[in-house]
Amino acid sequence: MDPDAVAKAFVEHYYSTFDSNRGNLANLYQEASMLTFEGQKIQGSQSIVAKLTSLPFHQCQHKISTVDCQPSGPAGGMLVFVSGNLQLAGEQHALKFSQMFHLMPTPQGSFYVLNDIFRLNYA
Amino acid sequence: MDPDAVAKAFVEHYYSTFDSNRGNLANLYQEASMLTFEGQKIQGSQSIVAKLTSLPFHQCQHKISTVDCQPSGPAGGMLVFVSGNLQLAGEQHALKFSQMFHLMPTPQGSFYVLNDIFRLNYA
Repeated sequence: MDPDAVAKAFVEHYYSTFDSNRGNLANLYQEASMLTFEGQKIQGSQSIVAKLTSLPFHQCQHKISTVDCQPSGPAGGMLVFVSGNLQLAGEQHALKFSQMFHLMPTPQGSFYVLNDIFRLNYA
Repeated sequence: MDPDAVAKAFVEHYYSTFDSNRGNLANLYQEASMLTFEGQKIQGSQSIVAKLTSLPFHQCQHKISTVDCQPSGPAGGMLVFVSGNLQLAGEQHALKFSQMFHLMPTPQGSFYVLNDIFRLNYA
């Protein structure tokens, strides 16, 4: 399957899950997974989802601007780089963000997030 | 050595080389290296440096805002995520950019860039 199509499908799945029920993102991380969120490092699926669900906003909508992907090494991994806008409920202006994912294949033929780095793009 | 310190040293070396003599960046890439520059995919050290040296500006200065890093898998790799400003000579306003590097260790105890994704952050 075309890696760009896989990356795009993953990104759409990730953000639609984030925007509808953040707790379900737990399925996309594993114990070895690491998130760096605005400089804060968090390890493990449970801690990562605890962080994401405790962010100081409830409703939000991610709008994707660009998705770039590259294969990553012999283990079948994939690097995905996303830029987009994060619209928070009740806020007039969207926040611009950049995020990268290092995806690794699962035995079931899917992917999990090994590395995740998120940054808002401050103006 | 502290991975954050290694990442920061790499980033400083990379951009100071870029800003002083882009051709010397060839030493930081290998044949398997891949660059995605504003959506364009380029493979191999020689092609990557040909792209970077043909960008439509001569003098430039990168100013780094944030550097995040994470270890990446068992092979000793490292993911580095950078945000910053790119000031072109003669331009009033700097361009904001985000860039990620997947660094892999060399037998000499240094790192080379296996994956590189660059995006300008459009306002």
